[in-house]
Amino acid sequence: MSILVVGSVAFDDLKTPTKQAENVLGGAATYFALSASFFTDVNVVAVVGEDFTDKERQVFDERPVDLSGLETMKGKTFRWGGEYSSDLTQRKTLFTELGVFESFQPRIPDHFRKSSLVFLANIHPTLQLDVMKQVEQPRLTGADTMNYWIERTPEELASMLKSIDVLVINDEEARQLAGEHNLVKAASNIRSMGPSTLVIKRGEYGVLCFREKERFATVSFPLETVVDPTGAGDSFAGGFMGYLANREAQDDRVVRQAIIFGSVLGSFCVEDLGTERLQRLSRDEVYERYQEFKDLTDFASL
Amino acid sequence: MSILVVGSVAFDDLKTPTKQAENVLGGAATYFALSASFFTDVNVVAVVGEDFTDKERQVFDERPVDLSGLETMKGKTFRWGGEYSSDLTQRKTLFTELGVFESFQPRIPDHFRKSSLVFLANIHPTLQLDVMKQVEQPRLTGADTMNYWIERTPEELASMLKSIDVLVINDEEARQLAGEHNLVKAASNIRSMGPSTLVIKRGEYGVLCFREKERFATVSFPLETVVDPTGAGDSFAGGFMGYLANREAQDDRVVRQAIIFGSVLGSFCVEDLGTERLQRLSRDEVYERYQEFKDLTDFASL
Repeated sequence: MSILVVGSVAFDDLKTPTKQAENVLGGAATYFALSASFFTDVNVVAVVGEDFTDKERQVFDERPVDLSGLETMKGKTFRWGGEYSSDLTQRKTLFTELGVFESFQPRIPDHFRKSSLVFLANIHPTLQLDVMKQVEQPRLTGADTMNYWIERTPEELASMLKSIDVLVINDEEARQLAGEHNLVKAASNIRSMGPSTLVIKRGEYGVLCFREKERFATVSFPLETVVDPTGAGDSFAGGFMGYLANREAQDDRVVRQAIIFGSVLGSFCVEDLGTERLQRLSRDEVYERYQEFKDLTDFASL
Repeated sequence: MSILVVGSVAFDDLKTPTKQAENVLGGAATYFALSASFFTDVNVVAVVGEDFTDKERQVFDERPVDLSGLETMKGKTFRWGGEYSSDLTQRKTLFTELGVFESFQPRIPDHFRKSSLVFLANIHPTLQLDVMKQVEQPRLTGADTMNYWIERTPEELASMLKSIDVLVINDEEARQLAGEHNLVKAASNIRSMGPSTLVIKRGEYGVLCFREKERFATVSFPLETVVDPTGAGDSFAGGFMGYLANREAQDDRVVRQAIIFGSVLGSFCVEDLGTERLQRLSRDEVYERYQEFKDLTDFASL
């Protein structure tokens, strides 16, 4: 089954304590698509400028990613620059140039409208809702959002939340959205806003998942080398939703496995700058690390 | 088998966002002993002042805890006051009055010297070493320490680390001791200083464990109500070491189970002020939450 992702494709300038580079391929839809492509066909809807070249397209073309929803507009591709602190716990935005992304109006190509799963990456909630109107009853819809929309477009966000199944956000966003520090209480609040499944990403600490009668918690994979946290959350979402798209059932058991696959993709993402590690990642490595994740955390089957 | 713990017994003044109280029973050895007592006989060596009454003794007497190593000295029991921020992530020490603890010289009673396991709670590393000289080849020795000793008594700490098997510290202490932010690298550094097993407590985020060929990672049990984090780390250590004392083998499998039992005790500890929750905790509840921990985290046996 295929998954549709709508979000940003960008050029990033990245400065980390160990590596740096300019104009590297980035954006939430990029990390999501590359990660999801290990499990399923991915349909991308995004916008880029005239500076987007065949070199960047090729990164997607090597995977089962359909770029026929990637619109090229007159102007420049969305650009973002970020710098990380020496311990990688703090990130400073150096610049944001929206470019053609500012006037992004997602248009879903006809052959994408029947995608089984849909993921609305972090864009204006009104655009997220607009995508929902263009697709034909996906089996499952997931979404991300951020502090910017929580603060500035609460009503539009509330409407969006009513129309999705799975919200994938980080712990600070969950706290802000719920107005509650305790994540267990915050999860109840947020689930009452619409999404039946809430997945809370906690960066280097792991993931919490809340569903009807289900709670699942897991760690992040401990890494000796972390180069660049950029895109880790979107890679998690891609691995998570991509694995779900690949499975018939979406029960608690499969959702748990999907969260581990999401964590695996997130852990690979941070091992090199930008999408470098994802680009040279193999399916075998993904499944090997899933097994390592089991070995790392299992006490139940002992 | 029995476990010997040497550390502080104290009176605490605690201020949390939801509850507060003065003169409540506290101290590392207290939390440790109460938690370990669910699994094994506990021998306590500590010092208190003349203000320590039968009321406090009774808390221990209801459990398999032997207080014959609890020395009463002329003067006042160690007192500590702490206040937590509204989200419980920050703690401010309001006062510290060492009292009789200042001249604490651990004397191990004869019938404690053959304790199978020994735990050196957070005291001066020279005193920890002194305890090691008084005991007769315990099967396993664990220890805790803190930033104070890492900064001020590095040589004494280095000697202590050479003589123990298991170091149980928190993530910030691990980073400081190793001079390395990345915990995987920090763990290698610390294990080369002596302890073959390193257990890193990450508060609300969980626990990492590093051994020869073994890495284990787990989450903390998500709680809807957290009243008071005081003593959570010592309760973890007590549950962890207590469970180990109860088991013949100390292989990777048993150590993993011990870490979960430690986490279970830590999670109960924070549910009420001071030792209140531990005092009314039952063995059935401990084993029930161990099972809930399995249900919460298991994906390997699915």
